Amino acid sequence: MPYQLADLAQQFSCLLQGDGSTIIETVCTLQNGKSNAITFLANPRYRQFLDSTTAGAVILKPEDMSNCPVPCLGHENPYACYARIAQFVSGAKEQRVNEIHPTAVIHETAVLGEGVSIGPCSYVGMGVRIGNNSSIAAGSCIMTNASIGEGSLLHANVTVYHECGVGRNAIVHSGVVIGADGFGIAQDNGEWVKVPQLGKVIIGDNVEIGANTTIDRGAIEDTVLEDGVKLDNQIQIGHNVHIGAHTAMAGCSGVAGSTRIGSGCTIGAAAVVLGHLELADDVHITACSMVTKSIRQAGVYSSGTPLQSNAAWKRNFTRFGQLDDIAKRLATLEKRMKKQ
Amino acid sequence: MPYQLADLAQQFSCLLQGDGSTIIETVCTLQNGKSNAITFLANPRYRQFLDSTTAGAVILKPEDMSNCPVPCLGHENPYACYARIAQFVSGAKEQRVNEIHPTAVIHETAVLGEGVSIGPCSYVGMGVRIGNNSSIAAGSCIMTNASIGEGSLLHANVTVYHECGVGRNAIVHSGVVIGADGFGIAQDNGEWVKVPQLGKVIIGDNVEIGANTTIDRGAIEDTVLEDGVKLDNQIQIGHNVHIGAHTAMAGCSGVAGSTRIGSGCTIGAAAVVLGHLELADDVHITACSMVTKSIRQAGVYSSGTPLQSNAAWKRNFTRFGQLDDIAKRLATLEKRMKKQ
Amino acid sequence: MPYQLADLAQQFSCLLQGDGSTIIETVCTLQNGKSNAITFLANPRYRQFLDSTTAGAVILKPEDMSNCPVPCLGHENPYACYARIAQFVSGAKEQRVNEIHPTAVIHETAVLGEGVSIGPCSYVGMGVRIGNNSSIAAGSCIMTNASIGEGSLLHANVTVYHECGVGRNAIVHSGVVIGADGFGIAQDNGEWVKVPQLGKVIIGDNVEIGANTTIDRGAIEDTVLEDGVKLDNQIQIGHNVHIGAHTAMAGCSGVAGSTRIGSGCTIGAAAVVLGHLELADDVHITACSMVTKSIRQAGVYSSGTPLQSNAAWKRNFTRFGQLDDIAKRLATLEKRMKKQ
Repeated sequence: MPYQLADLAQQFSCLLQGDGSTIIETVCTLQNGKSNAITFLANPRYRQFLDSTTAGAVILKPEDMSNCPVPCLGHENPYACYARIAQFVSGAKEQRVNEIHPTAVIHETAVLGEGVSIGPCSYVGMGVRIGNNSSIAAGSCIMTNASIGEGSLLHANVTVYHECGVGRNAIVHSGVVIGADGFGIAQDNGEWVKVPQLGKVIIGDNVEIGANTTIDRGAIEDTVLEDGVKLDNQIQIGHNVHIGAHTAMAGCSGVAGSTRIGSGCTIGAAAVVLGHLELADDVHITACSMVTKSIRQAGVYSSGTPLQSNAAWKRNFTRFGQLDDIAKRLATLEKRMKKQ
Repeated sequence: MPYQLADLAQQFSCLLQGDGSTIIETVCTLQNGKSNAITFLANPRYRQFLDSTTAGAVILKPEDMSNCPVPCLGHENPYACYARIAQFVSGAKEQRVNEIHPTAVIHETAVLGEGVSIGPCSYVGMGVRIGNNSSIAAGSCIMTNASIGEGSLLHANVTVYHECGVGRNAIVHSGVVIGADGFGIAQDNGEWVKVPQLGKVIIGDNVEIGANTTIDRGAIEDTVLEDGVKLDNQIQIGHNVHIGAHTAMAGCSGVAGSTRIGSGCTIGAAAVVLGHLELADDVHITACSMVTKSIRQAGVYSSGTPLQSNAAWKRNFTRFGQLDDIAKRLATLEKRMKKQ
Repeated sequence: MPYQLADLAQQFSCLLQGDGSTIIETVCTLQNGKSNAITFLANPRYRQFLDSTTAGAVILKPEDMSNCPVPCLGHENPYACYARIAQFVSGAKEQRVNEIHPTAVIHETAVLGEGVSIGPCSYVGMGVRIGNNSSIAAGSCIMTNASIGEGSLLHANVTVYHECGVGRNAIVHSGVVIGADGFGIAQDNGEWVKVPQLGKVIIGDNVEIGANTTIDRGAIEDTVLEDGVKLDNQIQIGHNVHIGAHTAMAGCSGVAGSTRIGSGCTIGAAAVVLGHLELADDVHITACSMVTKSIRQAGVYSSGTPLQSNAAWKRNFTRFGQLDDIAKRLATLEKRMKKQ
């Protein structure tokens, strides 16, 4: 849909510079600008592309407006402003199913709200409840007594196990598994006894879950994701984990069982938080870190070692195994020097 | 189902302390005790909750019984005992399908045992054999000539490739892929030639496989999981890996091709075992470790670096790249000191 | 199918030593040789098995032929030669569906080429185009306007999102998700605003994608995999990543958003490449490495620390947190020694 830049400025509370009658129909990048498209400058890495941009308009910080060669919108948070304008201009949620397909298998006891769509070859089990205007795509399986809140969008090939609950306005991507058994096994004379996983998964409102992410059901009580949690792809959430509101986790990260993560946290890509820990609110873990202890203070935390040429790394890698020895030898030298 | 505590004590060979007529209908945690529920104390972390528990009964070590404020069962292995009592009290395997759904597609040459259930929109291919009382949930695909042993439970959206075999009493969670091609590619003048993956996956009895775990078929011979192996979610098992009996692997771990892991091992969360290695029996790898060499001795092994505040980490991170230099300079100083 | 060794030598341009009338019907390993099977020697680790092999024939380097106790084929690249002969002898691509199953749901606007097969309970959406002789297995979902090139093989339970394109001769394994939304979220007063993901995924020809791998669609422009890229299982490719031709990535590795990887690269198992980076052509990252900076030079790069006994590791682990302090104390000692 075409919009005038001046109208976007007004609707999204931006400063306007340049021709307000510029027509915006879509979005583009700074580097590959299109005359009918709007883009943004948020990451300083991309500032180099501003001078030569051929975008129809740019959203940027008010202090950057004077450097913009094309019409622009000034906003204190250009990325969030771009997000809203892009949603508005592009028309979001277009991938809903818009029908109950005749090949969908819907148990007679399932309760579907108004405007619910169910895709081909999907399954909605006994006692399932699906809220108004939610859409379940092809191949998804919603098992016994699970519930999906209103306005939610489940993509193809999602699985929600029995009794689990997903809130309102969720976006759940393909391959997600919600509510599989947690990894509860008890050692007994060299064999493992299965510990039944009797809790559920409870997911709040406005949660997005990336492709192939898995969230295990609780062992006794429930695994909980509070409102506004955002999970990227291939994340593993263990049983009885509790994730606070508006915490975001990047791809391939994981949280082991019974750990409690506060609200407003960010967990970087491939970071791992071990089990039975507590992370305070506003804790930020950088990519590939291993969290082995509870974190009581908000802040940024990291672990890991630097990338090097393989030859240099091999030398340092070996020395790591001598680190305690190195430290002790250094202390010995220091003592001897003191005596002199 | 309601049980009397005294009956549970007798059936599961526990010491009994307190009112044997206590009715147990379900399970609870120590922290959130319910009067009709039983819980356990195994991890010392949770000992703090024992004094004030409101559980109907607690399973704990005989030496802890005197500290328990409510009726209790004494057992040398409280967690395994809890596992068995919880299975008994809660009624296990309730999520079986209990029918052959009319939308399931079952090839005319497939052989289904007695009491087999097949869920909606699932596929059972040519020559497949499924043992008595096994249950295949909605959306699962069992391809040509694969076999599933008796008493097994495959959850929704599982895939078993052609020729692969799963043993008896397996539990396979959603999104699991058994038997995809191993990563066999041969470099040839800057391009890759596919090495056909002609082996199978052979899985023993009493194996559990967590959600979205992948187990690749062998290149020439087979990938093998022996009896009682327990895999958590999102694990990757490469082609021709052999995992010994009763080995357990935590979430997001992986084993690269042709590696042989002994029996009774544990592999921690997100640990990676590289290819063409051998791990002895009773080897325990802690979370996030990287195993680059064979391990001939039973024991506990680890790698990785500690989590720190981002500021402290950055300083140490940089120094890691100087470690070999530091070690050499230390040795030089030591030599000079000796001369003095 | 049975072949004479002399005919294989001629067809695959190998030197022949020994009885050219040896019949080859299948493949085997060096260790478990079969008289009607051919194997290879490429990895020096397996040289120990050559002397006693009972294989019908072995493919190896010309200089190794004199050590081979059975008939053999000499080739400069034995592994690639084995790959081609194994494909030829075993008959590749046997797992194609070979029909359009009546339970497949195919939108009336989808365009299927000649010889296309579609498996049971799968879904081919509006405007989808599938090239000649491609095969889509059971439970797969190809969403609106996606396209699959000719000769491609999609295994069971694959998902391809709307508008995404897969090239010719692709092999896509089960559980793969192509085109889910990238992880685009903008922080706004403690909550997250979704950034619409309006790009696509574009995949070249001759690409193989392992089980449960996820490739996100671009935010504005497209995520691109060039021709001949080979991805193992459980890999995560973020939005707007660009992977050059004939780059191969091992299992559980990942690339964060907007990173550009050159051609001919290899990324080891569980290695992570962070976002907004550039890797030159012919960069090789070893397993479990973390790439935090762009790499401008071809070469081999690594990070990580060695596996040790848990007791030794704990000591060194602690010292890592003192590394900057150790380096400074060493420098102080060096200064004092200089003065003496």
